[in-house]
Amino acid sequence: MDVKQYMQDLGQRARAASRAMARANTGAKNDALLHIATALEAAQAELIAENARDLEQGRRDGLDDALLDRLALNEERIAGMAEGLRQIAALADPVGEISDLNYRPSGIQVGKMRVPLGVIGIIYESRPNVTADAAALCLKSGNAAILRGGSEARHSNQAIAAAIHAGLEQAGLPRDAVQVVETTDRAAVGELIAMPEYVDVIVPRGGKGLIERISRDARVPVIKHLHGVCHVYIDADADLDKALAIAFNAKTHRYGVCNAMETLLVDAAVAAEALPPLAAKYAEKGVELRGCARTRAILPDIAAATDSDWDEEYLAPILAIRVVDGLDGAIDHLHAHSSGHTEAIVTENYTKARRFLAEVDSSSVMINASTRFADGFEYGLGAEIGISTDKIHARGPVGLEGLTSQKFIVLGDGHVRQ
Amino acid sequence: MDVKQYMQDLGQRARAASRAMARANTGAKNDALLHIATALEAAQAELIAENARDLEQGRRDGLDDALLDRLALNEERIAGMAEGLRQIAALADPVGEISDLNYRPSGIQVGKMRVPLGVIGIIYESRPNVTADAAALCLKSGNAAILRGGSEARHSNQAIAAAIHAGLEQAGLPRDAVQVVETTDRAAVGELIAMPEYVDVIVPRGGKGLIERISRDARVPVIKHLHGVCHVYIDADADLDKALAIAFNAKTHRYGVCNAMETLLVDAAVAAEALPPLAAKYAEKGVELRGCARTRAILPDIAAATDSDWDEEYLAPILAIRVVDGLDGAIDHLHAHSSGHTEAIVTENYTKARRFLAEVDSSSVMINASTRFADGFEYGLGAEIGISTDKIHARGPVGLEGLTSQKFIVLGDGHVRQ
Repeated sequence: MDVKQYMQDLGQRARAASRAMARANTGAKNDALLHIATALEAAQAELIAENARDLEQGRRDGLDDALLDRLALNEERIAGMAEGLRQIAALADPVGEISDLNYRPSGIQVGKMRVPLGVIGIIYESRPNVTADAAALCLKSGNAAILRGGSEARHSNQAIAAAIHAGLEQAGLPRDAVQVVETTDRAAVGELIAMPEYVDVIVPRGGKGLIERISRDARVPVIKHLHGVCHVYIDADADLDKALAIAFNAKTHRYGVCNAMETLLVDAAVAAEALPPLAAKYAEKGVELRGCARTRAILPDIAAATDSDWDEEYLAPILAIRVVDGLDGAIDHLHAHSSGHTEAIVTENYTKARRFLAEVDSSSVMINASTRFADGFEYGLGAEIGISTDKIHARGPVGLEGLTSQKFIVLGDGHVRQ
Repeated sequence: MDVKQYMQDLGQRARAASRAMARANTGAKNDALLHIATALEAAQAELIAENARDLEQGRRDGLDDALLDRLALNEERIAGMAEGLRQIAALADPVGEISDLNYRPSGIQVGKMRVPLGVIGIIYESRPNVTADAAALCLKSGNAAILRGGSEARHSNQAIAAAIHAGLEQAGLPRDAVQVVETTDRAAVGELIAMPEYVDVIVPRGGKGLIERISRDARVPVIKHLHGVCHVYIDADADLDKALAIAFNAKTHRYGVCNAMETLLVDAAVAAEALPPLAAKYAEKGVELRGCARTRAILPDIAAATDSDWDEEYLAPILAIRVVDGLDGAIDHLHAHSSGHTEAIVTENYTKARRFLAEVDSSSVMINASTRFADGFEYGLGAEIGISTDKIHARGPVGLEGLTSQKFIVLGDGHVRQ
């Protein structure tokens, strides 16, 4: 098989389909989403059978239990995919929205119109539900999608693709609007990220290594989510009840997620008061604490944090704790160690809250709330294709709007430039 | 000189200055802009003397007259730079703008805050006024800038930089907020575009070759403006007076600009009526016409267009003309040949105007107006750092807003995730 030719063909068909998708009306797109949901439910037995082939192969290949769990489809997960599609159908269509339309002194009216990006390439691993979620977000935002899932999920992904194609056809939309790469040849990824004539943006979803590799080699823009080293800063003027609740929730609500707190910063003025009760709460949950020297002066039994701890995304029941000198100390630490994902301050002080909002350079900045809220659903985006730690284009949770751009529109009545 | 070390130092200082710029208040930034304007005017004699050195060297190096003209500074051009700075001071500050702040069912408030991008690298050629314009846009939008002008303008650029530094210091802002690369070693560009730790985005301003080279090699995002193959489509339902005025203005108002029309599309239904009077007007101006076979059936004396004419950015008194079959024919031509810059339709038909707006995938799409309006000043952006033909991030004329991004902000009162 000529992978280059295969991917070029895929790209060419996606580009053609993207023209039809850009002009598809909202009703047709919603119909397609609802038909796909129904098709997935109707194909439940087949999806589970195809998924069993992937699971069997995965066991032969020695995948660990966590990976096998992420790969598995069951009745509940299929219902979840269908529900996700119906939720996306219920969201407002961002395409065609006209804003800021004003008259200029020349007499022309100038405004902006929201339009699809075109063709979106998505590269992801193991979880087959991404196939349905990503396809749905691209479809609703008027884009064509080329999906490249992990080889370990190939039978599951092809079965989901069949349901997507059935739904698209029932709604009168081109089946090439969503294409799932069939070859498991790794060269396909290299081609997908190097066809600017056919692909407008790449969204990689997976480990840091995958994303760094793709960002380095891509010839098209990449919406990337590197990692989340999220912080909570407990200020001297914090309400300690709120501080304890937030610091506890941000670390222990879920460990393996990018918006979990990895380092706790505490103002020296309240460290002796705040740290002991918090350490007791963490101990109950079995969270391992690693502290700086000033932290260990208060909590002598915990391990010493090394320099590398400040940059670590543990994704585990481990927490680094650093005592800092006020807001400036906290901001200095963040500028040096934050991954630009999500940071929260706990304070009752207006001026410090205002400064934290303005000066902390992360995709989400919070006052008196847990970092765990950094999420497309919690933000009301309806769904997310990922969380961007980039500054260009979309930043933070990327929903439908992040899959569109705005063009200028000019309305005149025979106007010419003087 | 170790160029890599030199650029790393520059980058590190820019990153530090960008922190101060991000929290600089609007008053200080405006003060700096006004002080720079005054400093430029006060340094007029010195600017002209330094510019004379560049011009002399340029003549020795055999630069052509057009390049020497672009390089030259005189009283009027220095006044123009100062005026540009004062206009940017008068614009609203985009930084800190909070929008879409709404309560979510969880009780948190979620919104967006506009923030600077950080450090912007600008690579440009010959015109020294770009040094002042680009610095001013970056400064007002709260960014630090690293400017790399052409070696042919190095004395002029350094003299302008001195005025910028004087103005920054008078306003109490860090002089490293605007740094002009002093070395003319070409390796400096290679370093500038490959320091993601210090530079957040690159804006290249120059020929297509420069921009393609930078886009290929950059390790940071590039806001790029490739080229403008702009079209006017005269529809069967056009008011022919408007059509003639717009098609004439779009081609002849200025030739060497990216928003000039390069190809005219005419619906077959009105070609016989529209083309002869238009050809007469172009003939008066000495515009060379190159037509498709159907055009030459109506205008037998003009040259035949070859396939390559449809993709040509002439930047000259040359126009390609193609007769197409209605709006679908026009859109097919645009999908194949537009560079995504600016396209206009001339029509009185509501449905066709609406379709053109929705379906034409360019950074500016116009109804009954000349393509020459695609410009930051005409759009009310106040100034522009370039016109983006990308779809990601900024699209079309890029003003202050295009040099910012939005982060999410979350306001809570001790909220934790359930």
